[in-house]
Amino acid sequence: MRVYVVTGNVHKVAELSLALKPFGVELEPLRAEKLEVQSESLEKIALVAAEHLPPLDKPAIVEDAGLFVKALNGFPGPYSSYAYKTIGCRGLLKLMEGVSDREAVFRSVIALRMPDGSIHLFKGEAAGVITEEERGTGGFGFDPVFRPRGSEKTFAEMTTEEKNLYSHRAKAARNLAEWLVRRAKGI
Amino acid sequence: MRVYVVTGNVHKVAELSLALKPFGVELEPLRAEKLEVQSESLEKIALVAAEHLPPLDKPAIVEDAGLFVKALNGFPGPYSSYAYKTIGCRGLLKLMEGVSDREAVFRSVIALRMPDGSIHLFKGEAAGVITEEERGTGGFGFDPVFRPRGSEKTFAEMTTEEKNLYSHRAKAARNLAEWLVRRAKGI
Repeated sequence: MRVYVVTGNVHKVAELSLALKPFGVELEPLRAEKLEVQSESLEKIALVAAEHLPPLDKPAIVEDAGLFVKALNGFPGPYSSYAYKTIGCRGLLKLMEGVSDREAVFRSVIALRMPDGSIHLFKGEAAGVITEEERGTGGFGFDPVFRPRGSEKTFAEMTTEEKNLYSHRAKAARNLAEWLVRRAKGI
Repeated sequence: MRVYVVTGNVHKVAELSLALKPFGVELEPLRAEKLEVQSESLEKIALVAAEHLPPLDKPAIVEDAGLFVKALNGFPGPYSSYAYKTIGCRGLLKLMEGVSDREAVFRSVIALRMPDGSIHLFKGEAAGVITEEERGTGGFGFDPVFRPRGSEKTFAEMTTEEKNLYSHRAKAARNLAEWLVRRAKGI
C-alpha cells in the first residue's frame, strides 16, 4: 500500500518509512504546501494540516512532533524546530543548568487523510530525560540531549533501527500501519 | 473611524487604542477565530490571519509581534508568546547569562483588511537591549527584560504613554493611522 507523506524533513521520512515497511506500507513524498498553525496542541496542528491538503487519489499523512520538557512547562513543545534552529541543544542545556527534574517526553501525532476526506489521528510518545551534555551525531533536532527511558543512549547515539524501538514517531507510525492493515482486511 | 481588531490580548488593544486615538481611529474588539500559521515571518503570519477573517463591513486589523534576540539567532521571535508562557523572563535571562551582545529588537506587523478584501501591512520596530535582570511590572510578556535604545527604563517600567513613544506596536499603529487618514482624505 502506498501513502503520500507531506514534509520537507528527510529524517522524518526515513524513520517513518522504516517503521512502516514491515506492514507493507510504503511512503511517497509529496510536494504540497503544508499549512502549519500555531497551537499548543500537536493534534490540532496535524489535523489542520491534513484538512488543508489538496484532494488526493491516495491516503496521505502529515506528522507533527515536539519535545516537551517538564521543568520548562512544556517548552519547546510544538515549536521545537524553531527552538532547535535558534538556541539549539546548547540553549536547551543552558536552560536546564541546575535543574534536577530532567523529565521530558517526545510526542508525535500523525494525521492520515483518506481519499474520501476522512481524517484519523495516531499518536506516539517516548518518555525520557534531558541529558547533562550532548551525545551522538545521529538523528536530528534535540536527539543528542534526549535519552529515552530504558536505554543508556541518546537518540543521536542510536541507529534509525534502534531509535525506532523507542521513538514517539515510530510508535505513531505503527499505530497508523496497524489501522491501515486492519482496514485493508476489512476487520 | 472605527476599525475592528481581532486579538485576545487586552494589553495589545490598550496600546493600539492609545496610539490610534490622536488620529481619530477607534478600535472595536471583534470575537472571531484568528488563524495563526507557523512562520519565521511576522508579515506572513499577519497576512494569512487577515486573509482568513470572515467578511466584514468595516476595516479590520490583526497584529503579530515578537522579540528577536540577536545572540540567540532571533529566538524567541514569532513564538515569543509561547516562550514567555513556558520559560518566561527568567528563562530568557538564563539563555543570556554570560552573553555580552545584548542587542534585541521588538517587531510588530499590523495587517489591515479593508471591506473590499484588499490587505495592507504596516510595520514598526523598537531596537534595544536585553537587561541583566527583570525590572518593572507594567506592560506584558518580555517587557521587564527589554530596554529600548534611548531610554533608561524597561518597557515594564513605563506607563503605556511612555512605552508608546518607543514601541514597535505604537509605530506600526501610527503608520496604519496615517494611511487611513490619507485615504479618508482621498490623498
